[in-house]
Amino acid sequence: MPTDLPRVAILGGAGKEGTGLALRWAAAGYSILIGSRQIERAKLAADSINNQLGINSVLGLTNINAALQAEICVLTVIHSAHRQALESVKDVLPGKILVDATSRVDFRNPKPPEPPCAAQEAQNLLGRSVRVVAAFQNVPAKLLMKNIGKPMDADVLVCSDDIAAAEQVILLAKAAGMWGYYAGGLANAIIVEGLTSILISLNKHYGINNTSIKVIGVQSER
Amino acid sequence: MPTDLPRVAILGGAGKEGTGLALRWAAAGYSILIGSRQIERAKLAADSINNQLGINSVLGLTNINAALQAEICVLTVIHSAHRQALESVKDVLPGKILVDATSRVDFRNPKPPEPPCAAQEAQNLLGRSVRVVAAFQNVPAKLLMKNIGKPMDADVLVCSDDIAAAEQVILLAKAAGMWGYYAGGLANAIIVEGLTSILISLNKHYGINNTSIKVIGVQSER
Repeated sequence: MPTDLPRVAILGGAGKEGTGLALRWAAAGYSILIGSRQIERAKLAADSINNQLGINSVLGLTNINAALQAEICVLTVIHSAHRQALESVKDVLPGKILVDATSRVDFRNPKPPEPPCAAQEAQNLLGRSVRVVAAFQNVPAKLLMKNIGKPMDADVLVCSDDIAAAEQVILLAKAAGMWGYYAGGLANAIIVEGLTSILISLNKHYGINNTSIKVIGVQSER
Repeated sequence: MPTDLPRVAILGGAGKEGTGLALRWAAAGYSILIGSRQIERAKLAADSINNQLGINSVLGLTNINAALQAEICVLTVIHSAHRQALESVKDVLPGKILVDATSRVDFRNPKPPEPPCAAQEAQNLLGRSVRVVAAFQNVPAKLLMKNIGKPMDADVLVCSDDIAAAEQVILLAKAAGMWGYYAGGLANAIIVEGLTSILISLNKHYGINNTSIKVIGVQSER
């Protein structure tokens, strides 16, 4: 396993989105810590990932212990748990990258979320010492779970006021089989979060499941 | 020329976006009326399109006369002219489809626009008797102008509370060489409008021009 890859904690990682990302990053050789409020859930999710991949490196921990040991923390909780999850790990995040994948769009009643975006709320709560990056809000968990190790037909729009941090997250997207693109500052993340409303509307209208979007025209990345 | 195609007025059609759409629709056999506040500008744009395509069917009119004679009106003005343009044609729009292509994102300082979206402003101003559809906010004018008659690598997210009207606009997108998708009610158009901020940010960061997005997963449309 390469040792120069950052250790990644997935906070709220026992859910579908977090488990899907964990599967892909663990398969790509990343050291993955699954965090959950309940350590039993984290351990179950980690065991399941290890079993599926035939490895034993994925660990299940409490959110705080996962965040403590990681260089990059990826938050994959539902919006109602967003603030509490952030507050529970706030003290150990300074200097680290916090990737916020939260989208506040309700599947049953999709509509654009009100600004500020979830990632901006995180930045406001955590302060400037934490390098907040918004990404992965739109990636269907079902696509993540399928064909691990294969490229996915979904792009990741990465927003942050810290371009160097965004570039590390673009590498994470690539490791998971997706193209990541720097899509501007954190303010732009309200649009990416809102894209979830567009994708749910497309899914409902066309009677399908896993619509995603791709960026066309950035030749240097392809 | 097929006679069952709706007559289309492009209000503010002497600009780049309007001229680009007009070129593609005229090339596809649509009867096109270019509208402008200044009839001379409309006539010049119409002449230019006719010359480029070797036809003489495109007419240059004032916005009000163009709107009066069309079944579908497409508004392609800059945001500062949005309200005035709508007010100038309001009386002749009831029963017609008004396609609003306005995006309020500033190229120099791209950021997400404040709700309500321009198309919702139009719907509020025009009342429920006008079938407002938001579309074409993100299509780069330069892409429209190139390779007329050929497919474009850009998708159109079409938002409206009137699905039948949206479906007519999806046909217009197709006639212009793009795939159009019904992307939910007018409220979702704030996201599509805001995508312009994402695309400008991508263009600036990657030093390119004509980024666009495509929808992945709606197999039935492909």
